[in-house]
Amino acid sequence: MSLGPYAEPTPVRKGDALTQLHGVVPPVCTPLTPERELDVLSLERLAAFLIEAGMHGLFVTGSTGEVAFLPDETRYRALEVVAGVAAGQVPVLAGIIDTTTPRVIEHAKASKAADALVATAPFYAPTAPSEFAGHFRAIRAAVDLPLVAYDIPVSVGNKLPTDVVLELAEDGTFAALKDSSGDLDGLRAVLERTDSLVCFSGSETLADLGLFIGAHGLVPGIGNVDPHGYLRLYEAAQRGDWATAKTEQLRLRRLFEMIYVGDARGMGRYSSAIGAFKEGLVARGVITGGTTSEPMIPLNDTERAAVRRHLAEAGLL
Amino acid sequence: MSLGPYAEPTPVRKGDALTQLHGVVPPVCTPLTPERELDVLSLERLAAFLIEAGMHGLFVTGSTGEVAFLPDETRYRALEVVAGVAAGQVPVLAGIIDTTTPRVIEHAKASKAADALVATAPFYAPTAPSEFAGHFRAIRAAVDLPLVAYDIPVSVGNKLPTDVVLELAEDGTFAALKDSSGDLDGLRAVLERTDSLVCFSGSETLADLGLFIGAHGLVPGIGNVDPHGYLRLYEAAQRGDWATAKTEQLRLRRLFEMIYVGDARGMGRYSSAIGAFKEGLVARGVITGGTTSEPMIPLNDTERAAVRRHLAEAGLL
Amino acid sequence: MSLGPYAEPTPVRKGDALTQLHGVVPPVCTPLTPERELDVLSLERLAAFLIEAGMHGLFVTGSTGEVAFLPDETRYRALEVVAGVAAGQVPVLAGIIDTTTPRVIEHAKASKAADALVATAPFYAPTAPSEFAGHFRAIRAAVDLPLVAYDIPVSVGNKLPTDVVLELAEDGTFAALKDSSGDLDGLRAVLERTDSLVCFSGSETLADLGLFIGAHGLVPGIGNVDPHGYLRLYEAAQRGDWATAKTEQLRLRRLFEMIYVGDARGMGRYSSAIGAFKEGLVARGVITGGTTSEPMIPLNDTERAAVRRHLAEAGLL
Amino acid sequence: MSLGPYAEPTPVRKGDALTQLHGVVPPVCTPLTPERELDVLSLERLAAFLIEAGMHGLFVTGSTGEVAFLPDETRYRALEVVAGVAAGQVPVLAGIIDTTTPRVIEHAKASKAADALVATAPFYAPTAPSEFAGHFRAIRAAVDLPLVAYDIPVSVGNKLPTDVVLELAEDGTFAALKDSSGDLDGLRAVLERTDSLVCFSGSETLADLGLFIGAHGLVPGIGNVDPHGYLRLYEAAQRGDWATAKTEQLRLRRLFEMIYVGDARGMGRYSSAIGAFKEGLVARGVITGGTTSEPMIPLNDTERAAVRRHLAEAGLL
Repeated sequence: MSLGPYAEPTPVRKGDALTQLHGVVPPVCTPLTPERELDVLSLERLAAFLIEAGMHGLFVTGSTGEVAFLPDETRYRALEVVAGVAAGQVPVLAGIIDTTTPRVIEHAKASKAADALVATAPFYAPTAPSEFAGHFRAIRAAVDLPLVAYDIPVSVGNKLPTDVVLELAEDGTFAALKDSSGDLDGLRAVLERTDSLVCFSGSETLADLGLFIGAHGLVPGIGNVDPHGYLRLYEAAQRGDWATAKTEQLRLRRLFEMIYVGDARGMGRYSSAIGAFKEGLVARGVITGGTTSEPMIPLNDTERAAVRRHLAEAGLL
Repeated sequence: MSLGPYAEPTPVRKGDALTQLHGVVPPVCTPLTPERELDVLSLERLAAFLIEAGMHGLFVTGSTGEVAFLPDETRYRALEVVAGVAAGQVPVLAGIIDTTTPRVIEHAKASKAADALVATAPFYAPTAPSEFAGHFRAIRAAVDLPLVAYDIPVSVGNKLPTDVVLELAEDGTFAALKDSSGDLDGLRAVLERTDSLVCFSGSETLADLGLFIGAHGLVPGIGNVDPHGYLRLYEAAQRGDWATAKTEQLRLRRLFEMIYVGDARGMGRYSSAIGAFKEGLVARGVITGGTTSEPMIPLNDTERAAVRRHLAEAGLL
Repeated sequence: MSLGPYAEPTPVRKGDALTQLHGVVPPVCTPLTPERELDVLSLERLAAFLIEAGMHGLFVTGSTGEVAFLPDETRYRALEVVAGVAAGQVPVLAGIIDTTTPRVIEHAKASKAADALVATAPFYAPTAPSEFAGHFRAIRAAVDLPLVAYDIPVSVGNKLPTDVVLELAEDGTFAALKDSSGDLDGLRAVLERTDSLVCFSGSETLADLGLFIGAHGLVPGIGNVDPHGYLRLYEAAQRGDWATAKTEQLRLRRLFEMIYVGDARGMGRYSSAIGAFKEGLVARGVITGGTTSEPMIPLNDTERAAVRRHLAEAGLL
Repeated sequence: MSLGPYAEPTPVRKGDALTQLHGVVPPVCTPLTPERELDVLSLERLAAFLIEAGMHGLFVTGSTGEVAFLPDETRYRALEVVAGVAAGQVPVLAGIIDTTTPRVIEHAKASKAADALVATAPFYAPTAPSEFAGHFRAIRAAVDLPLVAYDIPVSVGNKLPTDVVLELAEDGTFAALKDSSGDLDGLRAVLERTDSLVCFSGSETLADLGLFIGAHGLVPGIGNVDPHGYLRLYEAAQRGDWATAKTEQLRLRRLFEMIYVGDARGMGRYSSAIGAFKEGLVARGVITGGTTSEPMIPLNDTERAAVRRHLAEAGLL
């Protein structure tokens, strides 16, 4: 697969999203007010911040965007806000995350402001790989937007089998793959076997390796906080300058340790990570407050201070 | 813990549900039309069939009720239909199954026609046991209905820890527990340590063991198809007639093998089981059609015939 | 399956072991000197204590016997010592636990003093269920002693599939099954489908349920400490007196909580449990010291005192 | 960490092994006669073939060497044979694989012909990470040879925690780490945090990525069959020529697909892989026969032909 020479992001029209899909596409955080309503102004500022930083696309209502915590109306409003800011400058991907086909299709129909839709395998209801193809084909058939497969076994309990991914790439169901499985061997197998799929690595800490094996882009959660770092990493990789890519990755790995600030209190990893990303955005002046959704445990003062130390060490304050 | 002498179900008023909660409470199937709309007439007939069979309660929009496949409006309509048929004769429990607290609370608020609400631990978003208490307390605080903890690690990826269950039983958050974990040792630990929780076993095949260790009721999926069998099992156990309970259980274990009819085709276990339950209800003249939700694979003629053979062998045709 | 009327254990000749195999067969602890050599005198006293308590057999070099920690010569010496004390009064089973067929066969050939051999599925090397039958048949063919299948997925990573167990029961490879899988549903499936297998439950805490569903015997680790309790439980179950069986089980469940004495220090569950069993035997005057194998963490004074409190509460001091 | 300029392997004296440990160190297959005895001549030819191919060391009785299937005497004889052929030209590492400390120490004492010993975390007996340090320190103390940590969670059920690895590297217990966990993120964390550990990647298919992140060597099973390929990959990586390293890796990935030849018959992955490696060595004229240990299922004619096709496509016949 050739993506051609690396190019600055240019405005896309609907339908062009597939050919434009590449580069750094952070999963946008969803800022909340202290009452846990959508903080629209903060979300607008965050989207603008990311676009100005050179991001090649924005992924709203992904796992980092607390999609699993957001009521439907908040999800759709977040997409609308970000699509309004993007205004065609970069493609906007929308996570349509729900348990099974009929519920996912409802989200798909409500997400037509997106340039592409991102869906996982079914979860909660035990489903077999033999049923995944039908799931994704029905979603693709329901709405005329490119579909991105979201492979995230830690959340859904199943890895997307390579042969299912390839079958659905070849028949046009999938335009792209977001691989959050951590299985670089599997991602490499996909990249070896098809030219019909844009592949994104969801790893923050092995992003350089994902690009080294041929992935076309990155979806790093901590890219909310340091988009410029991931852009440098991506651009170095595009040039084949692996030493620079690796050096940048090592810096970002240290920054990423901020997600462990809550470990000592035994909170969930997600509470700690999302809390840290949001606190980082507050510290950088992008969003107003770091409120996270229930039942996540909020960071305390000590933990927030630790986040700021990580930012300072990374030269971001 | 004493539930007092075994009594025929009597009409409950809201608020009495806790003291009334016991016995056989099948997770009601959700009949669908061939177009996969709610088949209201069939659902009414099914609810009436189960009440007439002596069920002590009805659990709508549970896993067997395809809750993970139903759009919100279908979920709420199913509850309304069943509550209308029940009309206070037996308590109606409603599954409010979703990924995290804010989304579950939305379902809770839309399910006030229920006599009790049934909620799981969070899923999809990685959540720690330290966050479960906040999750359930927020749900309980949002709606004034008894809350039933639904322990189903196969779907949500976490077992509810015994100490969390006990803490939330003692403080009044949980009125009851539906244990679908398969962990009889854990259920026994809960029963040993509290008198404040009504405990249901979700097992079809070890229901006698659940009652033997002191569970107060059963939530058997195949109870849709053979409610009388589970009633006999439950009543024998209430009398301490374990030989009869065991004999009935062995008969029901053979019947339950109908859930494997689809295995040879490699469909998911859920497709096979829900398809078999619905086909069993069609064969017994209770509902009109056996359509299941997407992406479940429908049973074929051979598999439907196999379901009927199971029913015939169990004396149900 | 009929085991005939319950009978006091009578001397067995080699070859009779199969028909004699039933009842309470504790997995005998392996007492060690402070230098971690086999404490032969203590092992003799323990074997005599268990036989006098009415145990129907003795299982040496099982998981509770620290088989995975014992050098080969210690294993074989432990068998020799116990077989010498048993002297045909009760059958002696020997665990021949190792990674794969050739290594297990070496143990089998060195364990001819046993009346039956107990082997697991292969472990360490990833092996498929399709290879289990060959494994067990080769072991059975190597030594003319009854073979007991040891189903212990927590240690070997695979559950023995029901169809493999049944196939090997029907063709005479397996004389018995020791089920330490915790899967009562699977054990029940085996019991329903064959009359050719003596089935033991390895559960300390659900032993009554194992017998309720038809198991022929028990292999409880804490039976080292309280053999009389498990004998009462077993005899009550044989009489169909389930209320007594359950009452005894509840008492033994409380006693079994001694295995958690080390939890606060974060040691492994095995260190805590084996340490507690051995300390219990010291407290009851059966063995001399509570030394466990490396790398298990020894109990400290506080933990040893806690073990004694458990014994006192159970009326065993 | 600097290993200095890349150097041809030179003779090592005991004690120098640590500084010499790097590069491609294949886990040597253990050729067997049709009667499943050690095929000494074939093993000698294989060791010579690998040394002549430029391997920087040889790892005997590893997982690929069927260590879990070999009786003790065969293990020790295999080490003796390979050490005899190596004769100090390259270091010989010996796997001392067994369930727990005392049994591993027995192997350590019997393996003094090795230049370094390779041990895993305990298995079979449930052991906690808090007990790993004691395990490895006791092994290290028992025999005066460098100790290599073998991180292979698929076999032992536990990942070696990064902090345990680092603690034991800093205190001199571990000289090296063989990472077969597939967790490149964890390996990278180790490499970032210590200069005191030689790190080997056990991956055949992501070897280039292991070297990219800083690993000092490779332990590829299929390196038995194509040592020259892995040497080219390693040397390219040493030069920083990542394009060549990647190209070689892609060729080796295709070759590695030979391990799936047995999948259609449902044999274990290990049977298929070890059978394919041995058949490959037969086809290349290095060893006499492809016999594998029980209970592995032997490759049939079709599967052996498929192995040869893979070799032909890789230009190895």
